[in-house]
Parts: sequence; C-alpha cells; structure tokens
Amino acid sequence: MRVFGIDCGTEFTGYGVVEVDCDARMPKLIHLAAGTIRLSKKEKTPLRLMQVYTELVGLMTLHQPEIVAIEEVFFSANAKSALKLGQVRGVAILAAATCGLPVAEYAPLSIKSSVVGYGLAAKEQVQFMVKRLLEIDYELDSADAADALAIAICHIHTAQTLLLQGVR
Amino acid sequence: MRVFGIDCGTEFTGYGVVEVDCDARMPKLIHLAAGTIRLSKKEKTPLRLMQVYTELVGLMTLHQPEIVAIEEVFFSANAKSALKLGQVRGVAILAAATCGLPVAEYAPLSIKSSVVGYGLAAKEQVQFMVKRLLEIDYELDSADAADALAIAICHIHTAQTLLLQGVR
Repeated sequence: MRVFGIDCGTEFTGYGVVEVDCDARMPKLIHLAAGTIRLSKKEKTPLRLMQVYTELVGLMTLHQPEIVAIEEVFFSANAKSALKLGQVRGVAILAAATCGLPVAEYAPLSIKSSVVGYGLAAKEQVQFMVKRLLEIDYELDSADAADALAIAICHIHTAQTLLLQGVR
Repeated sequence: MRVFGIDCGTEFTGYGVVEVDCDARMPKLIHLAAGTIRLSKKEKTPLRLMQVYTELVGLMTLHQPEIVAIEEVFFSANAKSALKLGQVRGVAILAAATCGLPVAEYAPLSIKSSVVGYGLAAKEQVQFMVKRLLEIDYELDSADAADALAIAICHIHTAQTLLLQGVR
C-alpha cells in the first residue's frame, strides 16, 4: 500500500509519500518522498490555488499512490481562516479526484495518537517520531512535510488495525 | 463585457451570465444564461467538488466570459460551514483560473446595493430586481441562480462606475 499524505495550509502545503511493505515479516514503513508546496503571498488566490492543484496532480501522477490521506480540520480556527484553508483543501481533494484516488480523512488527535501514541503530542514530538519510524536521518523540508508524512503513517496504521480486526 | 457570476454553496451553486451592450446609447444588460449546479448529498466530497469544477469549466468554455465575479464570504458563518463553503469556492476559483479568467470578488452588501440600491435588501427584493433589470419574465431556476446574476450585474455596475470615474 502506498499513501499520499497532505497537510493543507494557506501558505505552505506539505506532502509525504509512504509505502508499507506487508511482505516483510514485520510490516515495514518506507519513506518515498516528502516536500512542501510554498505559495507566494504576492500571488492572487486563483494562481495560488492553481499552483497547489497542478503540483499535487503532478506529484500524485509521479508517485502513483493508491490513496490520499488528509487531515480533518481543526474547528477552533475562525471562520475567515477556515474559509481560506477550505479553498486550498477543496483543490487538494479535487486533485485526488482528478487522479481517480480515494480520500481518507483523519482527525489531528488520531494522527498524533497513531504516530506518537499520545493525541496531544507537541509538533516536535510528531516530527521526531515521523523521522524515527521512517528512518530519516536528515532534516525534513518543513514541519508541514513532516505532518503530511504523519497523516500517511496514520492511514497505514489505521488500515492495518482494521485489517487485524477483520473489518476490511 | 460578458461576466460569469457564481454564487457558491455546499449544496447548490448558482451561476449566471450577463453581458452589457455598451454600443447602445444607454448601456443595456443582456441575460445570457443562468442555472444551478445541484450536488447530491449522498455523494462524497471529492466527487461533489469534481462535479462543481467540471460543470463550471464546461459552462465557462461554453459562454466565453471575460471575467468571473464571485461573492466575498459572509464571515458570520461558523468555522465548520466556512471550511466546507471554502472547499467549493476553491474549486470554483480554480475553474476560472483553468479557463484563464480573472476573478473579481464583491461583498454581499455591495451586491445588494448595486442591484436593489439598498445593502440590506431581502433575498426576494434581489430576485425581483434581477428579473426586472434583465427583463426575465419567467421563474429563475433557483434563488442561487438569481444571486449569481446579481453578482454579475454588480460587477458590471462597478466596472461602469469606475469607467465613469476614469479609474480604468
């Protein structure tokens, strides 16, 4: 299973591609790619949205994932920032649909629980565990790229749990 | 000038195409098309967003407007609904960018002022004036289609005012 994680943001959108090798005796997580789509604040919204959409479609075409995992949104944000984040999230979901990929959503609490084992873990703890789980020994592109990898890992862990429980 | 107005909604997204004939002695508004993109509540978000995007790109290609006008969002909505509306708005703006069209945004107050002459006008007053200004003698497809026409008219009126003031 290959998962494309996305961490949407109005300025930086992180992505991360993780594969799980189920043939190994112990399922092993493999880090394939991670990065950040950086939007220029100077550009107008249509061009920014076009950039996110085009880059995501390109990356999905390149990495050929089976599913896209995305964070469910944090509702404490105010309506104005929620709307702007929603715009980016809309084109990210559209990019997945364009590539014919299903989209799975995970709450921030589930993502942190799944990666760190504690739902209220700090950002640094998430980054530390992501690098450890994926055996990454260099600094990641951004905190958003690390978050995107965490979302992909969360999907893999959740899918494995469902598999063990015989749900799938 | 031909304007494509969009009234985004998570369930119904209205559109309306209005042209202004500046060659006439009195600039005349011409109603070219209006309708509603209805999203099924049963469909998942990716398919819904794909439907809005595909239909809007198709309609813009068909009607060949010079600009897209869209409502600025009403921030009293809660963060959850703002996020969902933002997702639809994001793909609508992306559709305009895909067609190489600029996007103009107008506040609800400006739209009502521009069409009814009163910023706090009721929905029915907006519909009545839209039909009157465009000489439409039948029921419009939906309130959302009427709102989309109102947004297009607002852009035309604003552009004409700017022209008169020598701003353009």
